[in-house]
Amino acid sequence: MEQKFNRNQRIAAITKVLVENPNKIINLNRFTELLNAAKSTISEDIVIVRESLSRLSMGKIETISGAAGGVKFISEVSKEQTSEFVDGLCNVLMGKDRVVPGDFIYITDILSDPNVITQAGSILASKFNSLEVDYVVTIETKGIPLAYEVAKILGVKLIIVRRDPKVTEGPTVSINYVSGSSKKIQTMSLARKSINKGSKCLFIDDFMKGGGTASGIRNLLHEFECELVGIGVLIDDADTPRKLFNEYMSLLQFNGIDENGGAILSPSNL
Amino acid sequence: MEQKFNRNQRIAAITKVLVENPNKIINLNRFTELLNAAKSTISEDIVIVRESLSRLSMGKIETISGAAGGVKFISEVSKEQTSEFVDGLCNVLMGKDRVVPGDFIYITDILSDPNVITQAGSILASKFNSLEVDYVVTIETKGIPLAYEVAKILGVKLIIVRRDPKVTEGPTVSINYVSGSSKKIQTMSLARKSINKGSKCLFIDDFMKGGGTASGIRNLLHEFECELVGIGVLIDDADTPRKLFNEYMSLLQFNGIDENGGAILSPSNL
Repeated sequence: MEQKFNRNQRIAAITKVLVENPNKIINLNRFTELLNAAKSTISEDIVIVRESLSRLSMGKIETISGAAGGVKFISEVSKEQTSEFVDGLCNVLMGKDRVVPGDFIYITDILSDPNVITQAGSILASKFNSLEVDYVVTIETKGIPLAYEVAKILGVKLIIVRRDPKVTEGPTVSINYVSGSSKKIQTMSLARKSINKGSKCLFIDDFMKGGGTASGIRNLLHEFECELVGIGVLIDDADTPRKLFNEYMSLLQFNGIDENGGAILSPSNL
Repeated sequence: MEQKFNRNQRIAAITKVLVENPNKIINLNRFTELLNAAKSTISEDIVIVRESLSRLSMGKIETISGAAGGVKFISEVSKEQTSEFVDGLCNVLMGKDRVVPGDFIYITDILSDPNVITQAGSILASKFNSLEVDYVVTIETKGIPLAYEVAKILGVKLIIVRRDPKVTEGPTVSINYVSGSSKKIQTMSLARKSINKGSKCLFIDDFMKGGGTASGIRNLLHEFECELVGIGVLIDDADTPRKLFNEYMSLLQFNGIDENGGAILSPSNL
């Protein structure tokens, strides 16, 4: 016997599928089959989901017409949620026990905490949504969860640049770059087959100081005939005045260590 | 003026919040405030969401009573979805162009593709949900997106073990271990403050050969008075007969390279 679902039940199922597939076009046939309902019925359900999420500033649902058309969910974060999250994160990171010898802040726990990364990723993704990038790119290791989350929300693949070529990756392209923080010459490398020519890429990382790494990423992408079209980081070092890049987005600014030995952090101008 | 939402609209909003916060207890007050509705109304809404998701094998909603109580969403993947996903992934990985010199399979793209990792993570998380772990642990680099996804679905933090101690992490603990595949002595290290004593941990990685890395993780966790209670990997090398661990879970088995130069892969017994 075929299952029937009432409107309330269909709305729960449709919302789940859309929210779990951000920026992916879902053909209405997927819903008509899953829920054993007519296309017109599903369309009405989607109007209700759209209205509810929109009134609560929880995201948009766009309709794409044509044969490959359907609907897609676009994640949104309201200005209030953004401020609340960024302020909260500043407070957490200003704890004195976070300053480690060498005047670094310990942020490793934050960078792999799904609670933090999901929200930070949603905010960054919403800022870059209109660029319509083909890939999100990051460099190992600490920024990987954030970059993964941004890629997932933008509905694109993630490319992880390595510090050394690996035997399991086949032919690789390597470049040298000068890291802004250590002034040392470093290497970054990427497998030949990892990225399609002519792609638009967004670089996501945990921390930006002089911008040397971002500059290296741009050069590496040029080797693949790809373009770096945006840069987003969680924290940006405001004490390093001249960044190699003027155009980038950060959620927080690090303003050094105060006289009591605590880190000074402030929300970026979002 | 206070906003009112009808049942359909409330169900869309409740589903979104629950699905985006797997394994997290959401207090009903959050919904009563967000949706300006009585607790009894929200409870009825939740019953409808629960029934719909359950009928479609899309997950469970559990009620937790008491002062710190509420409801939580537990992700589930049906047997059919699991088989379909694992069979599909086998087919993708058996492509001849994936074998790189040294008889390795190129899986880097798969390991950071949100489409693949979301599904693989959901399947692994659903297998380990009953262990009630405190952390998911992985070692840099390739398994990080998968481990992050599993941690997120289980509602716990992710710990990333490093190959070298980093200056930004404060005091670290390092151990040596023998990697099963290369037989070389390697180092793994973890910041002192990264993990609470007495925690139960789940190790997630991309590939398992002899189990040397998992064994190293177990020893490292012992240094923190923590216990390794489960191991999950995407691919398990069936050609390495005696694993250092009998108890682990994989999604696929790698059975070497066939005479035509293609990789042989099969679904694990899930």
